[in-house]
Amino acid sequence: MSEIRQDPLSRRQVIIVGERAGRPNEFVEATSRPRELPCPFCAGHEAETPPAVAVYGKHGADNWQVRAVPNKYPALTADAARPGVGAVAASAFDQPGFGLHEVIIESPEHVVSLSELSDAQVEWVFAAYRDRLRALALDGRFQYVQIFKNVGPAAGASLEHLHSQLLALPAVPEVVGRELESSDGYFRQHRRSLLVDLVQGELAANSRIVCQTPNFVAFCPYASRFGYEVWIAPRRHQPCFEAVEAGELGEVSRLVRDLIGRIESAIGPVAYNYFLHTRPFDMPAYDHYHWHIEIIPRLTKVAGFEWSTGCFINPYPPEAVAEHLRSVSFQPRTC
Amino acid sequence: MSEIRQDPLSRRQVIIVGERAGRPNEFVEATSRPRELPCPFCAGHEAETPPAVAVYGKHGADNWQVRAVPNKYPALTADAARPGVGAVAASAFDQPGFGLHEVIIESPEHVVSLSELSDAQVEWVFAAYRDRLRALALDGRFQYVQIFKNVGPAAGASLEHLHSQLLALPAVPEVVGRELESSDGYFRQHRRSLLVDLVQGELAANSRIVCQTPNFVAFCPYASRFGYEVWIAPRRHQPCFEAVEAGELGEVSRLVRDLIGRIESAIGPVAYNYFLHTRPFDMPAYDHYHWHIEIIPRLTKVAGFEWSTGCFINPYPPEAVAEHLRSVSFQPRTC
Repeated sequence: MSEIRQDPLSRRQVIIVGERAGRPNEFVEATSRPRELPCPFCAGHEAETPPAVAVYGKHGADNWQVRAVPNKYPALTADAARPGVGAVAASAFDQPGFGLHEVIIESPEHVVSLSELSDAQVEWVFAAYRDRLRALALDGRFQYVQIFKNVGPAAGASLEHLHSQLLALPAVPEVVGRELESSDGYFRQHRRSLLVDLVQGELAANSRIVCQTPNFVAFCPYASRFGYEVWIAPRRHQPCFEAVEAGELGEVSRLVRDLIGRIESAIGPVAYNYFLHTRPFDMPAYDHYHWHIEIIPRLTKVAGFEWSTGCFINPYPPEAVAEHLRSVSFQPRTC
Repeated sequence: MSEIRQDPLSRRQVIIVGERAGRPNEFVEATSRPRELPCPFCAGHEAETPPAVAVYGKHGADNWQVRAVPNKYPALTADAARPGVGAVAASAFDQPGFGLHEVIIESPEHVVSLSELSDAQVEWVFAAYRDRLRALALDGRFQYVQIFKNVGPAAGASLEHLHSQLLALPAVPEVVGRELESSDGYFRQHRRSLLVDLVQGELAANSRIVCQTPNFVAFCPYASRFGYEVWIAPRRHQPCFEAVEAGELGEVSRLVRDLIGRIESAIGPVAYNYFLHTRPFDMPAYDHYHWHIEIIPRLTKVAGFEWSTGCFINPYPPEAVAEHLRSVSFQPRTC
């Protein structure tokens, strides 16, 4: 049984995963775990994961392009008692860890980075993100779904085969809550969307733009925490990723893939995370929010200063990084 | 020239270190940097660091126990224009990176963990922390001084020889600011110190206490982010670490050393950070704040979920960890 707890001093939230109590050696093994062969995420090994909750690109009995499966080692489970709405964000002493934890397996082949996917395959991946968000919005028990990817051990990945994870949460998590707050403050003052104005500002300044497509913009944020950090946001105002239209899905998925390809061209293979921030379910009051994707390469170690202050030391000025990323090319897989 | 920037959406702060612009390869080298021999922090190599700003335990010309020296690669420098008070915490577009960055070299010998220090040596280290805080409080240009330690590459250390770092900041950083806010809210409601009440609550519950000394308590916090996280706080209310008395300095320094020794006994050699949180300079309105030290072993990787939500997944319940740490012993160096 997991527990969601909040520190009364810092107001940070944690999920304490109880099932692993008193097994410190397990972790020591996990850090040096050899690559598991056969890989449980490769085609032909479907029986090694829990049964899929959704399958994409299926034609024939065993054929698939993307599979969403329950996480075998969930941080949160739906069998815990459901807390009251708002419980994660409020003070949360001894709260059961209610939620869902899924894995999205992003290729039947053993690939390790999003940059290795073809146009069609990467579109399946983003279609899966949108579909799972839509399905979990309809489920009604969750307020927020966090989709994120860990690539490489330094980014927290424990399996190499390309996948993302999804945690469905009963309430809005801290970082998203603070973004909603900033957006709200800005909207009350200017009657405009903060992130839309930021994107407009970046386009006007033109010093941190990496690339643009008809509907999306990729830029290195002004206050980048990490070297080679890149954000992707739609040009026109759109609060929820669930609302992305079919025609735009290929465009945004290729853009994210190409940015990761450019980062890898610029600095070599690197561990990275990316994640989606989108308006929480059933919170139309926050329609001024604007979904976006943040790519954070894990070039630099997060050390004592960052943990103690919340302030990041970044030796890669985003203006220089954007210039570097504009100058490199990336050739996607064609089939 | 560094710059302090704040992200308008998340309100996160970053220090962009400009001098390293466009040198991505430097980092790739840095990750695999071999141990530097001779070590610039060892006795006899004093000329390889900038001249000391303070030396402790000096007897004779070349003899010292602890040296505080300017960081050769500072994240912040005092030659940048000084921003207005409150600038780090407020919106901070294009702010020069004003501050100081020092290294505290904690032994003339090449030791790598605090657990290797003798009673006398570890007391010199904490005397240096207190002395630098006192000196920088009198300096008048800074509002907060963050003292932190990185041990091991996974914790962000780039040199092995035992040392801490200190960043003197023109304003209160985000995490400390949020702790002051929580403390303030609690004080307004209860007329008591939040952290003092937390410590009392831990002593009463007795499920997360690791050990106690006459004046200090060490416990695994209720909402531990990291496995084997331990906090140390004074029993009696004390807002500022600068106020620790001579008689208590040996006690708290040995307690921190012994806790790190216990953690290493329990789980083996591990990368760790620790840092001090103390009341900012000249803010008597926050006298309800209570200084404390947080030790965070770096057992688990921080991954996409943590970065996207601010919520930590911790597979080590603090109650089980406290029990484990109580059960192990640590034998300090006697000379």
